[in-house]
Order: sequence, then structure tokens, then C-alpha cells
Amino acid sequence: MASSLTETAARVIISLAGEPGDEKVGSTVAEFGAIESVQRWLQEDSKLAIAKAIKRIVDTHEVEKALASIKAVSGRFVIPGDAEWPAQLGDLDIAAPIGLWVCGSEDLSAATSRSLAIVGARASTAYGERIASELASACAQTDVTVISGGAYGIDAAAHRGALAGHGKTIAVLACGVDVAYPAAHQSLLARVQESGLVVSEAPPGAGPHKHRFLTRNRLIAGLSQSTVVVEAALRSGALSTTNWALVLGRRVWGVPGPLTSATSAGVHLGIKEAGFTIMQDIKDPLVDFAQPVQRQISVSEIEIHHALSTGPRTTAQIMAMCGSQADIHDVLGTLAMMEMRGDVRHMGDLWFEA
Amino acid sequence: MASSLTETAARVIISLAGEPGDEKVGSTVAEFGAIESVQRWLQEDSKLAIAKAIKRIVDTHEVEKALASIKAVSGRFVIPGDAEWPAQLGDLDIAAPIGLWVCGSEDLSAATSRSLAIVGARASTAYGERIASELASACAQTDVTVISGGAYGIDAAAHRGALAGHGKTIAVLACGVDVAYPAAHQSLLARVQESGLVVSEAPPGAGPHKHRFLTRNRLIAGLSQSTVVVEAALRSGALSTTNWALVLGRRVWGVPGPLTSATSAGVHLGIKEAGFTIMQDIKDPLVDFAQPVQRQISVSEIEIHHALSTGPRTTAQIMAMCGSQADIHDVLGTLAMMEMRGDVRHMGDLWFEA
Repeated sequence: MASSLTETAARVIISLAGEPGDEKVGSTVAEFGAIESVQRWLQEDSKLAIAKAIKRIVDTHEVEKALASIKAVSGRFVIPGDAEWPAQLGDLDIAAPIGLWVCGSEDLSAATSRSLAIVGARASTAYGERIASELASACAQTDVTVISGGAYGIDAAAHRGALAGHGKTIAVLACGVDVAYPAAHQSLLARVQESGLVVSEAPPGAGPHKHRFLTRNRLIAGLSQSTVVVEAALRSGALSTTNWALVLGRRVWGVPGPLTSATSAGVHLGIKEAGFTIMQDIKDPLVDFAQPVQRQISVSEIEIHHALSTGPRTTAQIMAMCGSQADIHDVLGTLAMMEMRGDVRHMGDLWFEA
Repeated sequence: MASSLTETAARVIISLAGEPGDEKVGSTVAEFGAIESVQRWLQEDSKLAIAKAIKRIVDTHEVEKALASIKAVSGRFVIPGDAEWPAQLGDLDIAAPIGLWVCGSEDLSAATSRSLAIVGARASTAYGERIASELASACAQTDVTVISGGAYGIDAAAHRGALAGHGKTIAVLACGVDVAYPAAHQSLLARVQESGLVVSEAPPGAGPHKHRFLTRNRLIAGLSQSTVVVEAALRSGALSTTNWALVLGRRVWGVPGPLTSATSAGVHLGIKEAGFTIMQDIKDPLVDFAQPVQRQISVSEIEIHHALSTGPRTTAQIMAMCGSQADIHDVLGTLAMMEMRGDVRHMGDLWFEA
């Protein structure tokens, strides 16, 4: 088999045999190329785990199975040299992925050429989710692709915001692109795939092992032009994404939050000590993308006071009373600020003046 | 009169004749001294406003009246060279005050030798007031004097926090120390005077003219070792205090807040562009003061959930159930965070689990 090895087959073999982000494997491939690397590992009487794994994979025809699996979900395996390969991944040097398993109708290179990573805590607050969602909607309006993971909290809010704004969004997973993790996000990931891409370095069927989240984070940083961290506790995994972004010389924006919010503490520390740029306006990160920024029409507190002046109203009723250009995130955000100041209160979905 | 002029009398005359912060007056006094400056203005056939005002004041015995007024409120007029004069005001150079009208039992120099200015918006949020108050309480615990203005909002919250912590606090007013402005703060200012000092550059009876607030702000910056700005809109007057602090080479700390809060926008801009240090922890500003920092016992969310598990409770009841070491600001802060996350709700002062 080794003599007829194609570049793609060699890289599928390595993708199946190695762990994403293994820099020893990466440096061998960088030195000898994928085909020669596989041939060397096959010929060597090596005790290296990667050599053993490669022998096993070649013997068991797992390459064909993996390619069949990705085809089954209408996906593809994209490698360096392909037109679709994002050039910016070259900055990762020996930590660059061997190849990427991709599902969705967008072109990976084109979709990531103007892209912003929006990352943050799984255990996010309503405030953080609102910011992530509004920012992603703003990205959609300026043709900037959102890149995030597939987790609860900020990741999901970012994808939802991009989808709500009819924009492109990319979920970079730590498991195979055919594995819905978390399971509750199956339909969200399906929608992401329709409006953008689902991407993974791990082959189809790979489970969401813990260490894969950290190596996955370097891809989120590596694919995007800059990264926004919306909420992150002091030891949040989201900070590994921002570290990679800083290492790659890309800008990291930090969203400020209440001093008292533990889920903003990691962001504040990054602003103080790691060189994050504090976000002062939801549209700030878009200045990194040349296109002029459109301002959203904001629902004013006066409109909300007016809507509530004749009695309690549901969010939907307030939306309707604020006019057709009202945005749900904007309305909820304004309500949240008014509630913080004690101007309005709510019981469930019913809002009334305090 | 001019031949028998004392340094104090000369400076009272200038204080009565000039406007606080008039750098032309300041530079004349710096060049010739207060006594000779007054004599020159009296002798000159000058059309300068200051010369005319000084002649009028000497003729009408206003010096005696002003000294009687300050004595009537148990105050004093403190001038450079007095033991009580704060040396750090020398950094203001020709913008240094001619003298300060002071009420209260503390020594101005001693009380300001370890002092933190806490400034911010009049139109503050509950969040900002909570931070100002908690920070001021923390100052009290570490023998750091709080310095602020006398306004609604952050100023008042800072004084209240210092008073609650049995610490020293100083209100620097834009009007005379015997003028209660705003009128609603009469009793607060009386309490500040009991536990600290009320200070003004303007003589007794002076009204709170708009321009005096800006010149007053340089005194807040000049008296303190560093300044915290808790909340400030983009054009907030509080930013004139921080500008002075930066000009004087003193540290300015900025309290982050929600990106969506207009009253934090000026602080975020300062962090981004003016060199404010972002506050990451309520105790951060105390690192500028050598003494080790004591951590407060924090009321945990578990304690509050426990308190609410058997039904709705008032804040006072929750306090009582959280034990004798519970702090009202801490309890309210924890409740506010829980409310933001939707864990608790309140109707007036009654809290219940959501």
C-alpha cells in the first residue's frame, strides 16, 4: 500500500493514528512530508506509539472506513495544498493540523478569511450570552464569520446570534464532526452546518476527550483573525484559546463585566496582565475588519417605559410595541439594564414598571 | 492693614478674592509669596479683577467675617507651612490651593497620608454604588482614608461605606464647608465631619458654582495617593479627577462594568486609552498601600439559598440568618449577582427563590 500512498491517504492515516496537536508528529511531517513520514513509520522497527498505530490502521483499512464515514455526513477531509485550506493555519507551524474533517456548504478558506473567534465560559451568565449573541449578530451584518466551539454557554450563544443574523458561523469541535456533543446541541450543530461549517481535527467517530478541547482551542485561535473572550473564570479553558491567539500575534478582545462576577475575572486579568484589549463597544472587534460598520437601531428605555406605562407586558408584547426593527437581544439587554437599576421588574416573562 | 498682614490673613484675602484654581493668582503667589502679592495688588493701580476684589475685601473686613464663619462651624483655615498642610499638594505646583477651609477632628495631613480617592457618576447604578461602598469599607479596614466629593451616587456611596466600616472619610466640596449641598446630604456631611473631614478651597458661604466642581476635582486627585473611578459616562466630570491624577503621576484604577452600561463607558475608555489600571478585585487599590490586606468574610450563595429555602425573607432577615459577621453590602451584592442569573427574585425588600 505504502508505494501507492496519496497525500490525502497519508494524512488520513496520520489523523487516525495520532492525537490532534501532537508536535512530534507535526515536526516529522514538516520535515519529510506526510507520505514519506508514513512510509518511514511503516518501515521502522519503531516502538513509537504513532508507528504502531499507523501499522494497525494500514492493516485494518480504517482509511477507507473514515472516508466513508465523512462522506456519509456529506463531509470531506481538507489538507494543506487544497484550495480550501486556510493559509493562516501556517502560523501554527509544527502545531498546524495534519488535515481537517469538514462538514457544510461553505468553503473553509473563504469563510475563515474574515472571521472572529467568540469564546467563553460554559457556565456563562445571561449578560455574557447576550453580548456573545449581539456581537455574533453584528458579525453577520458585516460579513464576518463567527468561529467558536460547540459547548453550552458562550459558544452556543455566539452561534445562535450568527444564525439569527443570517450570517456564517463555524463550530470547531473536539470530537468527530459526526458526533453530536453535547447531545443537546445536535440540532444547533445541524443548523451551524447549514449556515456555515462544522470542523474538527479529530476523525469521524472520535469522542470528546478532555485533552482534545485544549488542542482544539489552538484551531479556533489559528483559524480566526482575532478572538473575543466574552466571559471566563480565572482558570477557564477559554483562556487557552486566547493564549494561542496572543502567541500567534492576533488581537484578543476582552469583554468587561461586573467586578463581582467570577465569570468575568479571567477576562479582567487578561486585560490587566496579558494584553487583551478591553471592549468598550459591542462593535469594537469589527474595526479589525476593513468594512465600515453599520449601527443597529437600538431600543431606547423610553420606548420600553412607554410600552409598560399601561400595564405589565410580556417580552413579545414589548417587542411588538417597540416596532418592527426591534431586536430581541437588544430589548432583553435594555430590560436587564433597567432591572439592574430598579426601574423595571419581572415575574417570569412578564415585565412591569417598578 | 497691609503692613501688619500675616501669612494667614493674606491667604484668607486671596481665598476670598480669587476663584479656586486660578493659576495666574497661583503663579503670582508662588513668585512673591502671599503677603507681598496682596501688597502689590493693593498698591497697583491695577485693572485686574483680583486686585479690585482684594481692595474691596480689605475695605469691608471680610477676612474677619470669614474667620468668624469658619469658627462658628468649629473649622479652621489651613495654609502651606502649617503642620496640617498635606505635602502632596505641592505636586499641584501653581495650581496648588492658596489655603483650605477645613471642618472636622482629624488632622488633614495625617488623614490624607494614606488616602484613596473614590469618584464616579452622580447617576450611578446599584452595582456602582455597591462597589464604591464595599471598596470604602475595605479602606476603613486597612486604615486608608477615603476621599470623595459630596454628590449623589458614587460619592455618597463611598462615604457611606467608609462610615459603615468605621473608617476615616473626607468630603472635598465645591462650595463652602458650611454650605450643605446637595441639601439632602446635610446629615451625611455632618457624619463625614464627625468621622473625618469636610474640606473646601472655597470660603465659608460660597455657593456650588459649576466651574468650582472641576477645580475641586484637582484637589481630590491631589490629596490622594491614587484614584478609583467606579462609574463614569463618556463625558462624566469624574474623568476630570482622573485626568488630574494622571497628570500628577498617580495611579488611576478603573472598575469594569457591563459593556452595555453607559455609566461604565467612560471607565472602559480610560482603561483602553488613558492608562487606567483595570480593577480585577475589590481590594486591588489597597496594594498601593503597604499594609497587608485582610479578606472579608463573604456571604456565600449557599447561605442565601439556605435562608430562602423556607420562604421569602427580607434583606434584614437574610442578614440575621447569615450570622453576625454578614455585611449588608456583601449580602446585597451576592443577592444582586444571584438575581442577574435568575436564581432569586425580589418584590421590594422581599427576596424569594426563583
